[in-house]
Amino acid sequence: MIARVIVTPKPVVNDPQGITVKQGLATLGFSEVSDVRVGKYIEMRLEAGSEHEARERVEAMCKQLLANHVIEDYRFDIETDGHKRR
Amino acid sequence: MIARVIVTPKPVVNDPQGITVKQGLATLGFSEVSDVRVGKYIEMRLEAGSEHEARERVEAMCKQLLANHVIEDYRFDIETDGHKRR
Repeated sequence: MIARVIVTPKPVVNDPQGITVKQGLATLGFSEVSDVRVGKYIEMRLEAGSEHEARERVEAMCKQLLANHVIEDYRFDIETDGHKRR
Repeated sequence: MIARVIVTPKPVVNDPQGITVKQGLATLGFSEVSDVRVGKYIEMRLEAGSEHEARERVEAMCKQLLANHVIEDYRFDIETDGHKRR
């Protein structure tokens, strides 16, 4: 199975990387961009007996390592045999 | 409109961050994970006259700033009025 995890800074948290990207885009002429947030994307291949089990395991990985739940949110989808679910 | 961009290292490119995450997961007992790739996730709010225009602008942003096309791939979707398309 394939898990695709997206980790983003919480809305209330400062995102200096996002601000820098926004300024860079403005310098290049993309002034239509009003807000940028930068997060992480993690794609994993893993073995699991079922989609339910994979979901539980990935949830645990996010809590323990992939996301810092004080300042970050996460979401993921699992792909099994070509089916993708959030 | 909202654009969600995912930038990933190309398959042939080394991904030390992914290797580190994989090792960290294994240390925590998640040995079912066989491969990890780490990329960037960029969410932008932007003004555009149409979805087509937004798509062209975001494509240009990816080429000029967001992705390094020598070592990275990118993909994005655009959300307009609650409709999301890849």
